[in-house]
Amino acid sequence: MVSWRNLDTLEAYKKLLTLKDSVSLRDVLNGARIAEYSVPMAAGLTYNYAAKKVDKRVLQILQELADEQGLIEKYKALLNGEIINTGENRKVLHHLARGQQAGDVVYNGKNMRGFYEEQRLKIADFAAKVHSGEIKGSTGKKFTAVTQIGIGGSDLGPRAIYLALEKWAEKNNKKKMDAHFISNVDPDDAAGVVSSLNLEETLFILVSKSGVTQETLANELFVKSFLKKAGLNPSKHMIAVTSETSPLAGNPEYLASFYMDDFIGGRFSSSSAVGGAVISLAFGPEVFECFLSGAAEADKTALEQNILKNPALLDALIGVYERNVLNLPATAVLPYSQALNRFPAHLQQADMESNGKQVNRNGEPLSYATGPVVFGEPGTNGQHSFYQLLHQGTDIVPLQFIGFTENQTGEDVTVDGSTSQMKLCANLAAQIVAFAKGKDDENPNKRFPGERPSSLIYGKKLTPNSLGALLSHFENKIMFQGFTWNVNSFDQEGVQLGKKLTKEVLSGKMDETLSSYAKLLGI
Amino acid sequence: MVSWRNLDTLEAYKKLLTLKDSVSLRDVLNGARIAEYSVPMAAGLTYNYAAKKVDKRVLQILQELADEQGLIEKYKALLNGEIINTGENRKVLHHLARGQQAGDVVYNGKNMRGFYEEQRLKIADFAAKVHSGEIKGSTGKKFTAVTQIGIGGSDLGPRAIYLALEKWAEKNNKKKMDAHFISNVDPDDAAGVVSSLNLEETLFILVSKSGVTQETLANELFVKSFLKKAGLNPSKHMIAVTSETSPLAGNPEYLASFYMDDFIGGRFSSSSAVGGAVISLAFGPEVFECFLSGAAEADKTALEQNILKNPALLDALIGVYERNVLNLPATAVLPYSQALNRFPAHLQQADMESNGKQVNRNGEPLSYATGPVVFGEPGTNGQHSFYQLLHQGTDIVPLQFIGFTENQTGEDVTVDGSTSQMKLCANLAAQIVAFAKGKDDENPNKRFPGERPSSLIYGKKLTPNSLGALLSHFENKIMFQGFTWNVNSFDQEGVQLGKKLTKEVLSGKMDETLSSYAKLLGI
Repeated sequence: MVSWRNLDTLEAYKKLLTLKDSVSLRDVLNGARIAEYSVPMAAGLTYNYAAKKVDKRVLQILQELADEQGLIEKYKALLNGEIINTGENRKVLHHLARGQQAGDVVYNGKNMRGFYEEQRLKIADFAAKVHSGEIKGSTGKKFTAVTQIGIGGSDLGPRAIYLALEKWAEKNNKKKMDAHFISNVDPDDAAGVVSSLNLEETLFILVSKSGVTQETLANELFVKSFLKKAGLNPSKHMIAVTSETSPLAGNPEYLASFYMDDFIGGRFSSSSAVGGAVISLAFGPEVFECFLSGAAEADKTALEQNILKNPALLDALIGVYERNVLNLPATAVLPYSQALNRFPAHLQQADMESNGKQVNRNGEPLSYATGPVVFGEPGTNGQHSFYQLLHQGTDIVPLQFIGFTENQTGEDVTVDGSTSQMKLCANLAAQIVAFAKGKDDENPNKRFPGERPSSLIYGKKLTPNSLGALLSHFENKIMFQGFTWNVNSFDQEGVQLGKKLTKEVLSGKMDETLSSYAKLLGI
Repeated sequence: MVSWRNLDTLEAYKKLLTLKDSVSLRDVLNGARIAEYSVPMAAGLTYNYAAKKVDKRVLQILQELADEQGLIEKYKALLNGEIINTGENRKVLHHLARGQQAGDVVYNGKNMRGFYEEQRLKIADFAAKVHSGEIKGSTGKKFTAVTQIGIGGSDLGPRAIYLALEKWAEKNNKKKMDAHFISNVDPDDAAGVVSSLNLEETLFILVSKSGVTQETLANELFVKSFLKKAGLNPSKHMIAVTSETSPLAGNPEYLASFYMDDFIGGRFSSSSAVGGAVISLAFGPEVFECFLSGAAEADKTALEQNILKNPALLDALIGVYERNVLNLPATAVLPYSQALNRFPAHLQQADMESNGKQVNRNGEPLSYATGPVVFGEPGTNGQHSFYQLLHQGTDIVPLQFIGFTENQTGEDVTVDGSTSQMKLCANLAAQIVAFAKGKDDENPNKRFPGERPSSLIYGKKLTPNSLGALLSHFENKIMFQGFTWNVNSFDQEGVQLGKKLTKEVLSGKMDETLSSYAKLLGI
């Protein structure tokens, strides 16, 4: 029986609080430690935590914490279909969209793994017909571009994945269609995308689990009005990804409908039809399958009890140590890969929306810090931007670096004896050491205090497979942190009040304060 | 005589520390306060701070702080060409690139305002010749696209401005050329951009003040190798923006060279030739002039001694109150405008690189917090992402909203009785009130604590003029905060150690720790 307890009731946590910042990176970081503080991940990736402020003693207590809080048991309960999303009384099944790591999950007589697989295969079949030209636009033109209409979880993850694989796909002759994304209710977003498209050859994917997302429905009608103006039949240019119970489901106004359900939260839906439709159309279904298989492999690794063999669990626990013991309120994700340009924005959502909570899973107030602020930009760009504060600011921000030996396009140039890819990786190595070890100088303005912790995820190349593993790593890290903090990482009640007040503004039934702000903005 | 003192030596600061969180937004926020807590900015924008946790008492002490620290005197000293960048022994002259608010600044016999104007006019002349077809590519084709090669300050600001004005320019028939940007040393960045271009019709702008930026020089040679492969003459396809003393200056390998100098820091260089070349080429010189005139108008407003009439100064002081008295370590910039998509990334650089310092302007260690972490994404997108944590997380993050009554394209659609633009603005108004006032609920999971402070900058439409004023507002806010904290906001010593260690890796002369990391990454 899994027992759900607040972090501050655990014996291991009390021990952990006594181990405040006992490690000096300047003293301990060396080749032997870099070799030792390393865990294989899935799909050829490795998690290296040599530059984190942990030692054998801290790691031992983190293992005790994992065991006492039953983190692996809770993960298994989730995999077995228990009601982990307590606030909404729902199962949490995004792992099942990419593999099955535990027993069958059956709901209302339906095998859920079977359901997700069925949807994936239907998408694969549909994509093949689009690629072959069997399914065409309303004027008989082949579809050459796909445009996703969705926001939040229906946008950030799929967009980040598309951008992460676009150059890889071009290089490997997997690129089938260009993909575009419309998300913001700002009409200039849709207007800008639509004006850049050849509408005759564009297939739109409308993505809304509930079928009532305000922004997405407004953008749907925006797009349809343009399709009509162009003399096209909207129902031949749009498919829907939604839940079977939504108003969009099975609507003949769509060329096809594909389904996910309430057991897959938006921010964890990249592995479902939400990511599957656009990625299968853009790059082919087999690319999406490789992505899922990398994620499934990482999900399996996350079952390991020993934290030194479980990178997602270890990463989660070190994060909790940094947040609750070292009291560091923010963390940065820094991929040294232009393809991962929007990956930090997706992780920002996945992490902050999941664990930005002040009540536990039973709705009781908590007296310790939960999810941190997450931000990031790709390196080396960030080095010329906010790294100044990271190196010499008054606050310490833990860092998550990501890097690859090879670039995706294979294009490169040698300048001053090194390729650009070598320069990219040299910068990454240099930053880790600079943050950890710092540098003394008699001029304090040129002094680097060091002792700024980072970890490194690295691999040979960013591919569909390694990207899947990377995404799963962070999803599972967030899940383990939620379990540790005893929060429900799978609801988002914090988005409701804004929706309610927005409706008040639009209906004209608002109080004086709201009305005053609305007037400033011309409403 | 301006006197430079640390914040914690000021009498007003000691008073301020006693006024910790004395304002309840739930109690005080109403229509009268929204009307009163408002300051006109430049170019038709308004700064509203009704939802900030300040009252008359706090504002009075902030005024005392501004006076005691001599913030306006320091700004005037900067405008008059004093050596404000102490670490590098340099003047700070980015304001002069857009107007003259104080006396003549002469350096080595050169009137600096004249110099910046001369460069602007040279760019305007060059752009006109490109637009007319008088200057063509090496195969005689007219230039239809421009691509900026630069990183950090040579990338984020110009890119944010281009994106902010692209739709406006299309709507108003001002769009002359598409612009693209190459920044990252990751060769996939340049490869991706170059493969999307018609090289025969592309003009490249190489931007590096020093002329030795590693990433930019690597990308220059990358681009040149592609130009040569395409049978084009690189010297007919590339201009340089640099300082007169750089190795790039006056080099016949460039079609033209335009200059800025060491008195304009990268992150403040959008108003100089760094932003001027690409914006004048993309939209025409008169659009860049409108942008500069909006910025100059805001620079003038920033001279006002009364903090209630000086929005940049007031914003800066409220930020210091939040950082040093309320102890809030991060702040979010949330533009409700898709066109301002990358504006938060530019402000993240401008703010964190300027004030992420732990020594004062004389190089002496400080014992109080300086620059916060800055992050943000456009609304409404962010609402479906990280706003959960902002509403219900355990930490409070002060917010800076930005919104406009009208969209740029004029395209819109009415759904359920409201346009998308109305929905956008209704969401913005709703969020401010939700953050400030919260909502009680018997279920704590549905409870919103409120008391989360925000300010709102609003105007009729995002145009070149209002964008210039917006950028100046934040630049001056950052400057005033730097003065308040007594840091040098204009150097960036924190970027040097990484550069040094990168060179060690690339030369093979590295210690064991660095070498171990380099090996993991294939070097």
